[in-house]
Amino acid sequence: MTTATTNRTARAAKPAKAAKMPQTLSDAQDPGIARLRALAPYRFLIENVEPEINGGRYPVKREAGDRIEVWADIVCDGHGVTAAAIRYRRQGEGDWHTTPMRHYDNDRWTGGFRVEQIGRFEYTIEAWVDEFETWRRDLVKKANAGQDIDSDLVEGRALVEATRDGADGDDRATLENILRELDGIEDAPTRMDLLMSERLDAVMRRRAPRVGLTAYRTLEVVVDRLSARFTAWYEMFWRSQGTDASRGASIDECIARLPYIRDMGFDVVYIVPHHPIGRTNRKGKNNSLVAGPHDPGSPYAIGDAGVGEHGGGHKDVNPEWGSLADFRRFVAATHEHGMEVAIDFAIQCSPDHPWIKDHPDWFRWRNDGTIRFAENPPKKYEDIVNVEFYRPHGGPPIEPLWLELRDVVLFWAAQGVKVFRVDNPHTKPLPFWEWMIGEVQRDHPDAIFLSEAFTRPKVMKGLAKHGFTQSYSYFTWRNAKQELTEYLEELTQGPTREYMRANFFANTPDILPVILQTGGRSAFMSRVVLAATLSSAYGIYNGFELCEGTPIPGKEEYLNSEKYEYKVWDWDRPGNIRDWITKLNAARRSNPALQEYDNLRFYRADNDKIIVYGKHAPQAGNFVLIAVNLDPHNAHETYFDLPLWELGLPDWGTVRLEELISGYTFSWTGTRQHVWIDHQLPAFIWRVTPA
Amino acid sequence: MTTATTNRTARAAKPAKAAKMPQTLSDAQDPGIARLRALAPYRFLIENVEPEINGGRYPVKREAGDRIEVWADIVCDGHGVTAAAIRYRRQGEGDWHTTPMRHYDNDRWTGGFRVEQIGRFEYTIEAWVDEFETWRRDLVKKANAGQDIDSDLVEGRALVEATRDGADGDDRATLENILRELDGIEDAPTRMDLLMSERLDAVMRRRAPRVGLTAYRTLEVVVDRLSARFTAWYEMFWRSQGTDASRGASIDECIARLPYIRDMGFDVVYIVPHHPIGRTNRKGKNNSLVAGPHDPGSPYAIGDAGVGEHGGGHKDVNPEWGSLADFRRFVAATHEHGMEVAIDFAIQCSPDHPWIKDHPDWFRWRNDGTIRFAENPPKKYEDIVNVEFYRPHGGPPIEPLWLELRDVVLFWAAQGVKVFRVDNPHTKPLPFWEWMIGEVQRDHPDAIFLSEAFTRPKVMKGLAKHGFTQSYSYFTWRNAKQELTEYLEELTQGPTREYMRANFFANTPDILPVILQTGGRSAFMSRVVLAATLSSAYGIYNGFELCEGTPIPGKEEYLNSEKYEYKVWDWDRPGNIRDWITKLNAARRSNPALQEYDNLRFYRADNDKIIVYGKHAPQAGNFVLIAVNLDPHNAHETYFDLPLWELGLPDWGTVRLEELISGYTFSWTGTRQHVWIDHQLPAFIWRVTPA
Repeated sequence: MTTATTNRTARAAKPAKAAKMPQTLSDAQDPGIARLRALAPYRFLIENVEPEINGGRYPVKREAGDRIEVWADIVCDGHGVTAAAIRYRRQGEGDWHTTPMRHYDNDRWTGGFRVEQIGRFEYTIEAWVDEFETWRRDLVKKANAGQDIDSDLVEGRALVEATRDGADGDDRATLENILRELDGIEDAPTRMDLLMSERLDAVMRRRAPRVGLTAYRTLEVVVDRLSARFTAWYEMFWRSQGTDASRGASIDECIARLPYIRDMGFDVVYIVPHHPIGRTNRKGKNNSLVAGPHDPGSPYAIGDAGVGEHGGGHKDVNPEWGSLADFRRFVAATHEHGMEVAIDFAIQCSPDHPWIKDHPDWFRWRNDGTIRFAENPPKKYEDIVNVEFYRPHGGPPIEPLWLELRDVVLFWAAQGVKVFRVDNPHTKPLPFWEWMIGEVQRDHPDAIFLSEAFTRPKVMKGLAKHGFTQSYSYFTWRNAKQELTEYLEELTQGPTREYMRANFFANTPDILPVILQTGGRSAFMSRVVLAATLSSAYGIYNGFELCEGTPIPGKEEYLNSEKYEYKVWDWDRPGNIRDWITKLNAARRSNPALQEYDNLRFYRADNDKIIVYGKHAPQAGNFVLIAVNLDPHNAHETYFDLPLWELGLPDWGTVRLEELISGYTFSWTGTRQHVWIDHQLPAFIWRVTPA
Repeated sequence: MTTATTNRTARAAKPAKAAKMPQTLSDAQDPGIARLRALAPYRFLIENVEPEINGGRYPVKREAGDRIEVWADIVCDGHGVTAAAIRYRRQGEGDWHTTPMRHYDNDRWTGGFRVEQIGRFEYTIEAWVDEFETWRRDLVKKANAGQDIDSDLVEGRALVEATRDGADGDDRATLENILRELDGIEDAPTRMDLLMSERLDAVMRRRAPRVGLTAYRTLEVVVDRLSARFTAWYEMFWRSQGTDASRGASIDECIARLPYIRDMGFDVVYIVPHHPIGRTNRKGKNNSLVAGPHDPGSPYAIGDAGVGEHGGGHKDVNPEWGSLADFRRFVAATHEHGMEVAIDFAIQCSPDHPWIKDHPDWFRWRNDGTIRFAENPPKKYEDIVNVEFYRPHGGPPIEPLWLELRDVVLFWAAQGVKVFRVDNPHTKPLPFWEWMIGEVQRDHPDAIFLSEAFTRPKVMKGLAKHGFTQSYSYFTWRNAKQELTEYLEELTQGPTREYMRANFFANTPDILPVILQTGGRSAFMSRVVLAATLSSAYGIYNGFELCEGTPIPGKEEYLNSEKYEYKVWDWDRPGNIRDWITKLNAARRSNPALQEYDNLRFYRADNDKIIVYGKHAPQAGNFVLIAVNLDPHNAHETYFDLPLWELGLPDWGTVRLEELISGYTFSWTGTRQHVWIDHQLPAFIWRVTPA
């Protein structure tokens, strides 16, 4: 007790009547005061917050039901006990919810909250010094060291008293009672016990003054419905769904096709633009510059003034296909089959679009009075013209155009369409998308926008940051194991996963990748397995299931594409892989692990032609392991790692495997396994469970 | 020419008298307009900017004469030609300077600017579409494809005309002349030549409208003087610089010591707190709780009311050492020797500090009326009390205290001191430092603050972000090759290098690391080489050069420390390493590579006891290679990589080496070399030049 004695003998008495100094000064008194007041409230440094995109400039994306794990470095001066919490709410809600964070390690804190509804949420982090907890910690240390704690107990009481003064209701009463009780206790140990009691702690955590309370900036989350992440798209070229090659299919013929699509297990029926098609410079077969008299033209040349109920533009249905009422029937029929319709939002206009006459200021004109066609010199696209989002030479936005484009989307949303595949968004301003998507999702938080941008990586990421729900990707051209692995790890494990969801299309009307041209049925089978299991969102364009792979020689385009001509398909064509796709989609639906996006992990396989990866949903007790032969021409075999550790098993553990396409089951023991994959059945999808 | 013909025959005439639509709407017309106007100006996405700390919240640090290399990802919609520039200025200057950025790769842009003066600079990035350059690029493509360009030439002329309308002065005249010239030319190729001419390009780059012009947020740089980066400190315990062990040294005795320090090649003479020392609870020898009647006390117990010219606190000189006038003489003498003084800014007070009586509200009092001593339970520090920066229980800042502390620093700055070593800054609020350092540097941009925080890494980094010029580091405890390499790579190559400069102290009055206790003279020699060549800023505390290494047993503290007692040193003590340090400092001064901080690179050496690293200053043509034997008890040898590639030499190249301590020279050929290092001469510092 020497220390305490020294302390006491040497006490400096507080001046009883010290001249009270003002603790606050007037701004004029010192030029530094304004800056002092601006900085002083930020006592905590809160940084390296995750998830956070561009310092909070853009929202992160999640799906309803997700738990958002928040991480932050939190530091403060001194030795006080830090406490931290996440505050969050749905945008527009008055009250914030609060959930505590806990210290993880090395001044890194973590916590989380669940978002059950769709819409925009906001969240932030608060940190403060818990003065009472600091006092309790120090008291215990002193008591354990045998030091005198009388004075500390008085200080603890004062903290409770100060807290009571700021409290109300039950908490105030509790604190009153504890104070009264405390004052009736004589001996220090019993007083200490009461001050350390859980019932006091519970109230103090809620009510005690928060010293140095500092809030981080507010961050945003867009919470989409589950199908933003987990979805299988079937792209339907409405024109070619009939049986008469001399005309386009009707909406009823398309409705008749829905059971076929549903039976394969798709969720979304995506139709290419369904508006009136321009006549001026209409493209002929195989994209020829001159159309024959019966050529239907590319549906991407939108608009034919006077055709349809809304002037012949973006709000009209192509009369060859049907009426707006028919369209609504199509939407309803799709819903009845448990699917939904996605439409194509392609902004470009044919030279016959009604906007050109009604809003000439939305377009660029040449000095000779002709409209300026779309071009990417030296390429010309004479069947379309582009709108201008800004006035010439760096002028302000052309606001009526922005509003009209938004209203087009709202128009179709009013017809029951909530999924929009957006054509070439990278040639329209990023702020337009941020604005338009935000406008639409305010009224329709279930609206989904898929960005069809095949361009430079940072532009594609920029579009995702600016609001697109999903994005097309480079998957279509990634065939080798190394490039698939690198690309998928970037997408699903790096920061990109916070804002970009890649929808893996195996083909599109514009892209017949070389591997499908040359790899035959085996390539179609392996590519669709890769698409459907590497990402939780994928799609095919009709004809894929028939293994259609005839290109324009030397190009990645389909020969005799239905983009420019009438076509009928034999949907039962020999060699089709409908059954394979059906089983694949069934596997996706019955395995929660395949419905997640960022749970993809690759496992070592010695043969570069075989890729082995898995998806794990531990809470659902579901682990799926996939092995794909990437070579469409040869069988391959490999030793590979069976990741028993994912299931918490030792390296010599045994698992039961069920192959989800063939249905056969077997067991494996140990992490080192061998597989032989015939290229004619180029993939295994195993549900793995501990034996 | 089929294409062009098609184009012409199919032209859509612009409606001559189309109803003019308003292009701008009123806010009330649509609820989306306000948001549209807020977003539309940000047509470019500018992101991943470097250097940038916490999204621009804190300034980066540089030294006068540096070139700041700026990097950014810059993307926009469409196919226009992007241009980008850096804008920068010294804070408070009216005009911005502009320097172009160039595209590096994959939408990453780079540029830079040089900062010659000290002070705060600000910079930002601007990006826009260069409409004229876009037009030129497309024109060339069309011309090369043999397309008709008549209409394009007219458009080009219109762009020049629009630019002329916005220009003035010489540029306007030039554009006028070119337009007149253009209109006199008949044939398209000659008109094209003029529109593609360099003289037109020069004006258009300056004057053409900038489409989609988007500015990034403004970022800051603190530009310090060179000694913020390159400096060698000698810590002088003023009390012990004399020859009479019964009293403290006088200022004159300290002045007499300056040639010794200068001759070793140091830049900064840092003195521990030089203020009156408290008497209450004064510490005795070896930190004992009871001081003898003649014990001088720890200089960190600051303040003895009534002693000195300014009340006996932080603005006074300890009368045992001298007067304020003497102090000014000490500062002047240090300057005359080409060095400068650093003082210790330690905020804590002795119980006798005049503030306690004058400003009781700056301190915490116990319920019994005694002042609350500093403690970190169960440890007590009865000879000091801490000030309170905020009112109790989370109240606002105690502004008069903040001002007084700032004024203490300004007071010493007015005495000619511009370097402040700050004691235990991590126990004072981060915003206080940001505010105080900013205040002082506004008047004294040459002021340097060294943070003495030995605490958790994120707190140390936080202090650096909040304004400290330099920081103490963990170097003192990093001995093994792996830990030195990892730590130095973190400091000098990661993001930390943008804001934190580690000053490598090999010892301090508080820290006698184990390696110096046990490694003898060899450890002192190797540790000082590591400190002085791994970092460009380093320091030793007096006695280091004498290889003083006697600890309090079991502790990292000096036995019979001069912190608590009078002491005299034999500065010529046998076994001293003054000559070694002198040559080391001379090598630093004559080799620009050793004066840089972030140019450190480690090279492979097979033996873990030998560390090989180098520093390269390519512009100065200076490359220094260092090899240190980390084992103070044994000689070691190793094969290692001689990094000929740093000098642009092939793997079989030959270099000339000059060892900078011994002076011997030799040649080496090839990248694989061998070295043997005796622990009694534990380091080689080679200047390497191509043979």
